[in-house]
Formats: sequence, C-alpha cells, structure tokens
Amino acid sequence: MGFGIIEIINNQPKYILMEAKHLNKNRTEGLEKLGLIYHETINIIQQYSITDVAIEAPFYGKNIQSMLKLGRAQGIAIAAAIHQKISVHEYAPRKIKQSITGRGSSSKEQVSSMLQRILCFTHNEKHFDATDALAVALCHFFQQNNSANKPTKKSNNSWSSFIKQNPDRLNP
Amino acid sequence: MGFGIIEIINNQPKYILMEAKHLNKNRTEGLEKLGLIYHETINIIQQYSITDVAIEAPFYGKNIQSMLKLGRAQGIAIAAAIHQKISVHEYAPRKIKQSITGRGSSSKEQVSSMLQRILCFTHNEKHFDATDALAVALCHFFQQNNSANKPTKKSNNSWSSFIKQNPDRLNP
Repeated sequence: MGFGIIEIINNQPKYILMEAKHLNKNRTEGLEKLGLIYHETINIIQQYSITDVAIEAPFYGKNIQSMLKLGRAQGIAIAAAIHQKISVHEYAPRKIKQSITGRGSSSKEQVSSMLQRILCFTHNEKHFDATDALAVALCHFFQQNNSANKPTKKSNNSWSSFIKQNPDRLNP
Repeated sequence: MGFGIIEIINNQPKYILMEAKHLNKNRTEGLEKLGLIYHETINIIQQYSITDVAIEAPFYGKNIQSMLKLGRAQGIAIAAAIHQKISVHEYAPRKIKQSITGRGSSSKEQVSSMLQRILCFTHNEKHFDATDALAVALCHFFQQNNSANKPTKKSNNSWSSFIKQNPDRLNP
C-alpha cells in the first residue's frame, strides 16, 4: 500500500511526499492492519491539510481474496476521507497511466520515470507502490485542471497537454 | 447489504432489529454509496450502543469487481467501528452457517428458519441479506460465549450446544 502527496501552487503540481507501507512486514492480523491504515490516513489528512483524495479502481486482481483485502483497505481510506469531509475520486489504472505517460499500457517503470521528470524528484527503489500512488494524485490534478479549463473539444486530459502548456518542465 | 442487531440479556441472545439495504435502488454512484454506508453505520452504532461488530469474510465471490465493491463496503463499516473504538470480528460463511444450524453447507433458507426459532421472530421475505447479517451477529455471540465458558474439550460452538443448555427455546 502506498500514498503520494502533491501540492498545487499557481496551478503547478509540486511533489511533497510519497511512501510505501509494507503492512505484511508487521506481524499484525488483517483487522488490526485496517486499524493502522485508518489512523495513519487520518493523520496524513490532518498533517498535510489534504483537500482531495484520489484512489485507483482496479479492474483485475490476482484473485478474489486479494481483491477483498484491497477493497477493505480502500474502504478504510475512503472512510477516513469521508470522516474529514474530503471529496474522494477514483480512476481506472489505464486512465492513470494514460494521463501520466500518454499511453494506457505503460509499465510502472515508465510511469515512475515520467513522474520524476514532471515533479522533479528522484526515486531509485524497485518497488512502485509509492510512485503508483503519486501517479493517481497527479492524474487527479490533470483531470481537475482540464475540467476547470472547460475545453470546447475533447482534450487529451494528460501529461502531453500539460507539457504543451509547460514546455520548461521537460528539462528542469 | 444488510445488518442485524441482537442484545445479550442474562447470557441469552435477544432479537432487536435487522434490515436489508438495497443500495442499487438509489441512483447513487459508487463513492456516494460508501458515504451513505459510513454515516448509516455510525448512526446505528450510536443509536443502539453497539459494543461488538462482526462481519462475514467470504472466500468466493461472483467476480473480481463485485469482490472489490464488497471489500470497500466492508472497509467502510469497519472504519466506522474503529472510529467508535468498537472491536471488529470476522467469520467465514461456513463457520457462520455451522454455528447457527450445525451444518456448514446449510442454505440461506435453513439459516433464516433456524434464526427465527432461536431468536423468536418471523421473517417472510425472500431476500436473505438481513437474516444473513443477523446470523453473523448470533455466530459471534456463540463464539464469545464458548470462549467465556472455556470448555476443557473442543466444543461445538454452535446452535446445538446453545439449545442443549436452553431446551425451552425450541418451542417458545
């Protein structure tokens, strides 16, 4: 499980924090883990004054059991957001990838690499739970940004349209 | 989705309330539904001074998507319980059925019928979301009761052991 936080300053996304939580490393039972996720999510929302929460809505999973566990963990995080009166949004994995790299079938490495260019940070880990989460946050910003701009024709809702408006972000 | 409430008076389970929520009938989106579930669960917990929450932990589901939705809904209800500092327990479907009827492969009809005998109420609906939920509550009582009694040999943890101690409950 991972989370990623960005801040929007002058309509530009800025990297704040991301983290992967390896809950299996704690010797906690399923329901205890959910308690940890709840309290941690509440803490993050309060500490960083979170205004929007976005989550991934996967279509496929390894199996029924892992999907139930994922659903419960997401439900816990969603409840923490609801409790703090924060709006929750969800995006399909293809939508997220398409939004960041321009291609819905991109690998996690490609998404991570593009995120580092857009948000100006470095990430050398082999796990992508944290960058995956950051990608959802940035996807949400692109979507909100596009809605706010109210384009007259169907736009690309993506990193490509963002970089067109911000060519300087390619070579920081 | 359903919920069932029982009260334990003098170590006897008493039927209080059960209800099925047909969320598909509301024209609400997925995330809005979760908001409804959260607030409703909080309300029920407060209104009925709930002390224990028990949920079903299914092993099988229709498909990956329905399992994600179920997991999210359960996560929301679990978070509401965590928020109110209430302990949460989970039971496998076979365990629940075995606990109520003495047989893990019982039908929903058989579980409902046995519940009505044990808890002295009538239920004529064809849907079993509410009685399924009530069954989890009663299963939890049987489990807690058996733990409290600390039997020296492995006991039946079930309706059958309950009725042995309370033969008058068969013909109310």
